[in-house]
Amino acid sequence: MEKLKERILRDGVAIGTEIVKVDSFLNHQLDVGFLYELGAEFRRRFADANPEKILTMEASGIPVACMAALHFHNIPVVFAKKAAPSTMTEGVYTANVTSFTKGIISQARVSQKFIRTGERILIIDDFLAHGEAALGLLSLVEQAGARTLGLGVVIEKEFQGGSARVRDKGCRVESLAIIAHINDGVITFK
Amino acid sequence: MEKLKERILRDGVAIGTEIVKVDSFLNHQLDVGFLYELGAEFRRRFADANPEKILTMEASGIPVACMAALHFHNIPVVFAKKAAPSTMTEGVYTANVTSFTKGIISQARVSQKFIRTGERILIIDDFLAHGEAALGLLSLVEQAGARTLGLGVVIEKEFQGGSARVRDKGCRVESLAIIAHINDGVITFK
Repeated sequence: MEKLKERILRDGVAIGTEIVKVDSFLNHQLDVGFLYELGAEFRRRFADANPEKILTMEASGIPVACMAALHFHNIPVVFAKKAAPSTMTEGVYTANVTSFTKGIISQARVSQKFIRTGERILIIDDFLAHGEAALGLLSLVEQAGARTLGLGVVIEKEFQGGSARVRDKGCRVESLAIIAHINDGVITFK
Repeated sequence: MEKLKERILRDGVAIGTEIVKVDSFLNHQLDVGFLYELGAEFRRRFADANPEKILTMEASGIPVACMAALHFHNIPVVFAKKAAPSTMTEGVYTANVTSFTKGIISQARVSQKFIRTGERILIIDDFLAHGEAALGLLSLVEQAGARTLGLGVVIEKEFQGGSARVRDKGCRVESLAIIAHINDGVITFK
């Protein structure tokens, strides 16, 4: 998506060879009008998949998942939680997820009542890096006996191998922008 | 907002005297079409305030803040983070926030570059209970030398005193539904 690439080059900050900061529009401050356009692009790419529900990971997957859902005729969004509130009292599916940017392992949780056997699930997230979050979400869907139709991410860092790991699971991946490598503050798209 | 009260009575689950679970539409599974309507109601109530930016708390404040922002001509949303990613490298404002439902104290963080001196900020959140999150967000705005125009919440549990604490700070509060008390699984609105 050209407009996204232009935005990443304009407002993103590349750090070292691993990190691109896009906190001015995607995952800290949110440009909701732009995210709404990204949602439309996910709709266009997954229109044939006909999902019943969108699954994402808190926190920064939530905005883009919600905007996508508006374009899919308001299908529900479910976000996996990384901490267990006292109100989460019933059966849950869990998956361990390593965050490389936060240096921690957390447990992603979804109430069993919100992913049903046979449901057609589209997974949406902001980033696809090493694939840890995506594989965790795939596991949650699999545990529920539901079906993952695909994974849609805003920014894929291809060199970190996540997309290959997810495709190895038989899951379709659609990335709105694919970064081939980052060097000395310079972002190169695929 | 009558439609919200009806939804809480239909889909909410009251537990003991303190908790109402609305995870089927507000803070785990998200009914985005309904949240879009809640966003319109926030716009109606704060139309005169003319905010430049919406501030909320991750994670469950994000969906309703985004939906409200769409109705305020796509003003930016900033969400305070409860954990510090390695990409959050520059100056931050911080405020300690106690979560009664999670039983933990966390530190809410916002990058200084995303709240500017003099900015007109509307705070939006899903719940107002004891007021800890709201007071934390108010503190972040104050540290930045910005101006809080008001606090809009979807559900206020008035008996937990948060709205009184926030109003004591001179902040306007608009709650789309106000719960007076919860007893034996019965929710009573004000």
